[in-house]
Amino acid sequence: MKLWGGRFQKETEKAVEEFTASVRFDRRLHRCDILGSIAHCHMLARQGIIASEECQAIVRGLREIADEIAEGKFQWRIELEDVHMNIEARLKEKIGEVAGKLHTARSRNDQVALDMRLFARDAILAAIERLVTFQRTLLQMAEVNRDVTLPGYTHLQRAQPVLLAHHLLAYFEMFQRDVERFTAAYLRCDVLPLGSGALAGTTFPIDRNAVATELGFAQISRNSMDAVSDRDFVVEYIAAASITMMHLSRLAEEIVLWSSSEFGFVELDDAYSTGSSMMPQKKNPDIAELTRGKTGRVYGHLQAILTTLKGLPLTYNRDLQEDKEGFFDTVDTLDACLDICNRMLTTTRIRPRAMRAAAGEGLILATDVADYLVRRGLPFRQAHEVVGRLVAHCLTAGKDFTQLDLDEYRGFSSLFDEEIFEITVDTSVAARKGSGGTSPQAVRDALAASAGLIQRTLDWLAQRPEDANQVLPE
Amino acid sequence: MKLWGGRFQKETEKAVEEFTASVRFDRRLHRCDILGSIAHCHMLARQGIIASEECQAIVRGLREIADEIAEGKFQWRIELEDVHMNIEARLKEKIGEVAGKLHTARSRNDQVALDMRLFARDAILAAIERLVTFQRTLLQMAEVNRDVTLPGYTHLQRAQPVLLAHHLLAYFEMFQRDVERFTAAYLRCDVLPLGSGALAGTTFPIDRNAVATELGFAQISRNSMDAVSDRDFVVEYIAAASITMMHLSRLAEEIVLWSSSEFGFVELDDAYSTGSSMMPQKKNPDIAELTRGKTGRVYGHLQAILTTLKGLPLTYNRDLQEDKEGFFDTVDTLDACLDICNRMLTTTRIRPRAMRAAAGEGLILATDVADYLVRRGLPFRQAHEVVGRLVAHCLTAGKDFTQLDLDEYRGFSSLFDEEIFEITVDTSVAARKGSGGTSPQAVRDALAASAGLIQRTLDWLAQRPEDANQVLPE
Amino acid sequence: MKLWGGRFQKETEKAVEEFTASVRFDRRLHRCDILGSIAHCHMLARQGIIASEECQAIVRGLREIADEIAEGKFQWRIELEDVHMNIEARLKEKIGEVAGKLHTARSRNDQVALDMRLFARDAILAAIERLVTFQRTLLQMAEVNRDVTLPGYTHLQRAQPVLLAHHLLAYFEMFQRDVERFTAAYLRCDVLPLGSGALAGTTFPIDRNAVATELGFAQISRNSMDAVSDRDFVVEYIAAASITMMHLSRLAEEIVLWSSSEFGFVELDDAYSTGSSMMPQKKNPDIAELTRGKTGRVYGHLQAILTTLKGLPLTYNRDLQEDKEGFFDTVDTLDACLDICNRMLTTTRIRPRAMRAAAGEGLILATDVADYLVRRGLPFRQAHEVVGRLVAHCLTAGKDFTQLDLDEYRGFSSLFDEEIFEITVDTSVAARKGSGGTSPQAVRDALAASAGLIQRTLDWLAQRPEDANQVLPE
Amino acid sequence: MKLWGGRFQKETEKAVEEFTASVRFDRRLHRCDILGSIAHCHMLARQGIIASEECQAIVRGLREIADEIAEGKFQWRIELEDVHMNIEARLKEKIGEVAGKLHTARSRNDQVALDMRLFARDAILAAIERLVTFQRTLLQMAEVNRDVTLPGYTHLQRAQPVLLAHHLLAYFEMFQRDVERFTAAYLRCDVLPLGSGALAGTTFPIDRNAVATELGFAQISRNSMDAVSDRDFVVEYIAAASITMMHLSRLAEEIVLWSSSEFGFVELDDAYSTGSSMMPQKKNPDIAELTRGKTGRVYGHLQAILTTLKGLPLTYNRDLQEDKEGFFDTVDTLDACLDICNRMLTTTRIRPRAMRAAAGEGLILATDVADYLVRRGLPFRQAHEVVGRLVAHCLTAGKDFTQLDLDEYRGFSSLFDEEIFEITVDTSVAARKGSGGTSPQAVRDALAASAGLIQRTLDWLAQRPEDANQVLPE
Repeated sequence: MKLWGGRFQKETEKAVEEFTASVRFDRRLHRCDILGSIAHCHMLARQGIIASEECQAIVRGLREIADEIAEGKFQWRIELEDVHMNIEARLKEKIGEVAGKLHTARSRNDQVALDMRLFARDAILAAIERLVTFQRTLLQMAEVNRDVTLPGYTHLQRAQPVLLAHHLLAYFEMFQRDVERFTAAYLRCDVLPLGSGALAGTTFPIDRNAVATELGFAQISRNSMDAVSDRDFVVEYIAAASITMMHLSRLAEEIVLWSSSEFGFVELDDAYSTGSSMMPQKKNPDIAELTRGKTGRVYGHLQAILTTLKGLPLTYNRDLQEDKEGFFDTVDTLDACLDICNRMLTTTRIRPRAMRAAAGEGLILATDVADYLVRRGLPFRQAHEVVGRLVAHCLTAGKDFTQLDLDEYRGFSSLFDEEIFEITVDTSVAARKGSGGTSPQAVRDALAASAGLIQRTLDWLAQRPEDANQVLPE
Repeated sequence: MKLWGGRFQKETEKAVEEFTASVRFDRRLHRCDILGSIAHCHMLARQGIIASEECQAIVRGLREIADEIAEGKFQWRIELEDVHMNIEARLKEKIGEVAGKLHTARSRNDQVALDMRLFARDAILAAIERLVTFQRTLLQMAEVNRDVTLPGYTHLQRAQPVLLAHHLLAYFEMFQRDVERFTAAYLRCDVLPLGSGALAGTTFPIDRNAVATELGFAQISRNSMDAVSDRDFVVEYIAAASITMMHLSRLAEEIVLWSSSEFGFVELDDAYSTGSSMMPQKKNPDIAELTRGKTGRVYGHLQAILTTLKGLPLTYNRDLQEDKEGFFDTVDTLDACLDICNRMLTTTRIRPRAMRAAAGEGLILATDVADYLVRRGLPFRQAHEVVGRLVAHCLTAGKDFTQLDLDEYRGFSSLFDEEIFEITVDTSVAARKGSGGTSPQAVRDALAASAGLIQRTLDWLAQRPEDANQVLPE
Repeated sequence: MKLWGGRFQKETEKAVEEFTASVRFDRRLHRCDILGSIAHCHMLARQGIIASEECQAIVRGLREIADEIAEGKFQWRIELEDVHMNIEARLKEKIGEVAGKLHTARSRNDQVALDMRLFARDAILAAIERLVTFQRTLLQMAEVNRDVTLPGYTHLQRAQPVLLAHHLLAYFEMFQRDVERFTAAYLRCDVLPLGSGALAGTTFPIDRNAVATELGFAQISRNSMDAVSDRDFVVEYIAAASITMMHLSRLAEEIVLWSSSEFGFVELDDAYSTGSSMMPQKKNPDIAELTRGKTGRVYGHLQAILTTLKGLPLTYNRDLQEDKEGFFDTVDTLDACLDICNRMLTTTRIRPRAMRAAAGEGLILATDVADYLVRRGLPFRQAHEVVGRLVAHCLTAGKDFTQLDLDEYRGFSSLFDEEIFEITVDTSVAARKGSGGTSPQAVRDALAASAGLIQRTLDWLAQRPEDANQVLPE
Repeated sequence: MKLWGGRFQKETEKAVEEFTASVRFDRRLHRCDILGSIAHCHMLARQGIIASEECQAIVRGLREIADEIAEGKFQWRIELEDVHMNIEARLKEKIGEVAGKLHTARSRNDQVALDMRLFARDAILAAIERLVTFQRTLLQMAEVNRDVTLPGYTHLQRAQPVLLAHHLLAYFEMFQRDVERFTAAYLRCDVLPLGSGALAGTTFPIDRNAVATELGFAQISRNSMDAVSDRDFVVEYIAAASITMMHLSRLAEEIVLWSSSEFGFVELDDAYSTGSSMMPQKKNPDIAELTRGKTGRVYGHLQAILTTLKGLPLTYNRDLQEDKEGFFDTVDTLDACLDICNRMLTTTRIRPRAMRAAAGEGLILATDVADYLVRRGLPFRQAHEVVGRLVAHCLTAGKDFTQLDLDEYRGFSSLFDEEIFEITVDTSVAARKGSGGTSPQAVRDALAASAGLIQRTLDWLAQRPEDANQVLPE
């Protein structure tokens, strides 16, 4: 018989149990659940709602259950539906009827909301830690390869030469926004829902602020009906993760391109690539491809949770049980992709000569030639037009700018003089010295600023509560 | 060392194995994989590419492996990446180097495409079987409740009275389209990709049609590059499943509404509902809610696979490994929702009196009153206007049509006479006798037609090959 | 000939112009574009890159163009591709070749990034303004209806009685999170990208901070390659809008339910509902339905932009042009839904008696009865079980709690005494007096706190720059 | 006052009209609407429900309105809500009260369902026509470039040499599945819903089969409640379009790659590419990029309509109005992308030498070397291992297979003899001669088969009814 069975005349069908039970996946919340129950129990005792000895018995029982689970000795039972009922039933086996007092002034509705928020807080912090680790890798690679030049691309066409360090710092910036986005999500997640009861609050004289303090929450929820049916924090995590995955998919695409024979800009480490069952020569950028592919999965989870939440009337509806699997998989996917891509990048061999060669070929300096004319007084539009015709000439003649003599130049504009030959890949890069540009000095400044941003994130992280897996109070 | 390791100088990192391995989920394909390997092996022997005794050894080994897996004795090893390599490695343990001949004229690229198509074929048939079972339930309920009338709704406002049987047959029609959609998807799935090699075909003189015949495929693929990178059949399954889930979500919404206190049209069986951990009086339509909620999950998988496939150049890319988990989960979700909703519906108690009472209240017969005026010569638009004013009068006076006398009627139009009192819920329903309408006769015709559609589906199913789990040739 | 045509031998095909041109939709950015160009031009002059008189001519020309557009006199030409080229071409018509100097030190890549950020900033502020307006409506309705009680629902089953004010404040909380989410998005949007050039910065000695100050940006972007290819701020807006639409869809669902005959909790104003072309009696909650339906559209735009951005290599790719239409439609949809739902709600007539009647029926007080037993020493689990059986008894006997006498109560537990009759809808509501609960006092506190939150938002809004449509500097 | 206004005491708010009106976009259905109305009217007259002269007046009026719209003289009025009411109101202006008879036995619910199906039928046929045109282009290119060899890729790594014709035919196959998918969708769309009334059928003695015949529908709908709330055909179109867009995005990705400096496999025509506002040398594959980007938009529309339909109770709900804009945009996007990509491809210059050079470099023949060993008796797995080590040797020595002498070969296996030097790119391609492989003969067979498939599609198309824009009966 179910814990809620008093009103029912029949047992639940086995198939219904199978269909509705969440214990297969929500047992992952066991640590958060026990942590929350202990804090709730402490408060019940302090408020005189249960006796002090009852509290001690319950807490001791819960701690033993935590150990049983950690040691793999706990028997999860599907007929007990979910992580909450499994733990409560075990508690009753261990300490008897007094276990039934734990659920005083609480409903599974606010209990699961609490567990999810505890879990989500940790997940957010874990994501930020990985992002900042990745940022460090980018910074180190940028510093090591400070002299490497490669073509910058637009439309996958060579556009203007840039420093590899500058290119890498573009990803640093994406991850910086991700850090900030997750940080903002943390603030909205950091709210205690417990005490909301099933939907309307509770008739017992509980102290919600005490529970919040014990669990390290910055705020308590302000409306019980909202608190039990709010899953915004899950959506917000998955939305932030979707953007991070999008960023990773861009990096992954570049790794795939750069490790192709055609680009040849990098070589992956043997330990970070895989082979073919049929073609013995193959060395494939599987990690990058899988990361790119897994972007779809995370986007899908975002769509799933939004769809599930659409049009639900207040308050709790069982549809909300669907908040977990996609969320957990998003957390696992994001963490794994950040970890492995970071390690892949760290072990990737850069080929500076191939990059440089590509940057030096062709007509990549055309913008610099146009700017040259502008500095001699030609309006930019006309300069662009002149250089466009010059480019057409080069294509027909099979030359690039370095192969033109001054007469050829002057055939297109009398503003050209000897100084035109001072435009090279290096002077082009060096000339973009404004803030945010690719010149060595601007990049040096950016590196310093980036180190500061990393430190700021680390400082913030240092002030957050410990992970639920690390703590279990007496 | 990996089976493909000859070219590599370093072992794969453990973390990379973890990240790239698919055996955790693709082992579900083991039966399809072995089935496909046996057919491939038979053909290699018939074509003289391997010796007949070699074939026998390989097939015997594979059959033993199938038994080991079925009995739970097989050791899945993550460092062997996937289901294919796990089985091949075990085969080598059992029969020695000759196991290495099985992969002649084959790549994992065409092998996995085959496994997925075998699996998808079975999944499609399973969905159709469940749909037709559900259709039968609807038909039975429609027949049993043939006399029950309830309000038909538009905008969730009572619109016109209808037969419950007619309402149920609306879902029959949705499922009928689902059956047809899955049937069409089956035809495009029923194509053998094996023989496409890694991407370009194979240099061995294989006989693809023989393999297709052994495996019951209607066609062989026409282009090897397409065959190894095509996952349209996965998208198409999930798209069809999304539409079916949408249909189920509509039914689920109605069950939720109808079992509310406010509607009170049905009562769920105790065995098909659940209670509350806090509120002892609750009896909740969890199955309907979860089904509605799981719609999000399936939509998400559709988006995921489409996103993953977007922009992939030919041919195989590792991103394609992401075709499995969402697909498997869609299959499981769809099958479970169809099963459980069917059983829930079967056990639900209809409350004919509550339905009838709701159909009889209010101003639901307004259209019939307007049609009455039209039959007396008033253009429909004017009739609508007259009845609109009549409705406004009723609302002010707190009456419905049954409470008006002829004078009141005639105050709005002189076309009214005594016959107006013949308009009742029953005559309203009976009057909609055109094909597809709600009159008892039209519904009887629809029931007969529906039975015919069911038989057609059953006949088609009877001609399909057996499920991969049922067969394993010598 | 295109402005970029110097390099090309052939004219662009008409069909290609049609396909690639964005002027049909990006002309909506004209005001932002001109604003940005003026600031850029001012800076070029201050830095001595163009002459002061040139600057004056350009600015005067741009201002005239702004007027032409405002007056509907501007000729948009599809062969000029986009809003930028249309305006620049017109400028040249007006002031001659000097117009060509405006594009010095600028590319369309950083120009469009600037326009989009200016537009997005205004869109975010507009959303926040509407949200806060809506919050005020909720607060007013909550205050006016402070004494109204209705059933609180879980699983659409009556669960516990709550105050309507409490119910309305649940939506206040959702919108409060929306306000905070949009505010956080604003901070990440409030970054000047101009000066990033095509991708690498510029060779001219520009002053980016001066442009930022003139345009009211809090920061300048730190990496040019990121700045021209970053559309996170668009994704973030649409993600926030998706959550807001999800909230609105929940409210809309409740309006649809509440205005049904079965619930009858509210009546929509005639001016905020529509009728039927066929059924004269119908009065439909179209606004709520459409809002609920439009949720899909916004979710779709979120998926669209995420999909578009997936896997793009650095830096700008033409795919990014697809950032606009879905974004604009999201802005329009969100603004319209917030506006109209706010007005619909304001004009909706609450039916307190129907609400109260529904709250008073049935077994909704079961939790209170269980809590009563807990306060007399029974562990909650046992109390729940006892009341569960009591509920079963009521259902069989066709009674509710108010119809039981003390002997019947005591047949289930000897802990019952006369005080059990003090449990009523009103005492139930009043008893949930903890913070966030539904008691009149808790709700009064919540109303006060809510007013404070509104004021905080208004203060923040007051410090933001004016809308691009309001300003145009000399 | 609205046409449905009789029951209402107040005028609809202007803002509500703005929000709920669909005429801005559904006027696109005007031709379908008039076509359907004429067929309905003919039937009403034949059945004696309206008089023959009334029918003539109505039809004549409708035809004049069709002309007014075609000539741009029609005044669309937002206060008349939608295309149906706009046309009906104009009809009344033209022919007086008799216009009001047109809506006899019809509701907007079945009327709009009819219009949408007429529109969708044409859209499906248009998509199929474009697909078959594209298939022809691929076939022609394949025939013209029959001797061109390029590397086949997996994981964007060179894998095995293939014929360009074979590569192009992979896309032919994708489009062939698209053709079949749209054809199947057509069958489910080709159903007349008219006669379903608002939801329950009609009280008038209509002849639905006659209307179906006049409008060229193969079937009539079997259930009125389903018919007015079914939008499966819209979902199915958008799902099919999503898969086609996915295919196009793959082709687009390859065009982007192939036209990069690094690949250099193709050169786009000047008329089918665009330049840069800043960089005079740029020639960008904008069409391919935009097509790839627009994939997101279509996926988004799929998600949008699925989300909108989720959880709607029977029957018509106003949410369904959201079925149009995303659908229309999908139709326009798909048609435009198919048109322009076809033209882009037709004008693209293939660079056979660059392709061939890439196919000839490196270790692309490794599979052939392994197969060579297999044919000499080595199990494939061992052969793969031997060649893997050979590849490692080549990489260290900086050689490819053509640069090894026999002694080097024999250092890895004594099975090597002089025949190893017969393995070349050409023999490799020629050896894959099985059905579906890349050998010249297999490709010739595939070309012939493909021509047959095209003809089959054309035959099917020839039997379909004419486009709604082409016909307007008397």
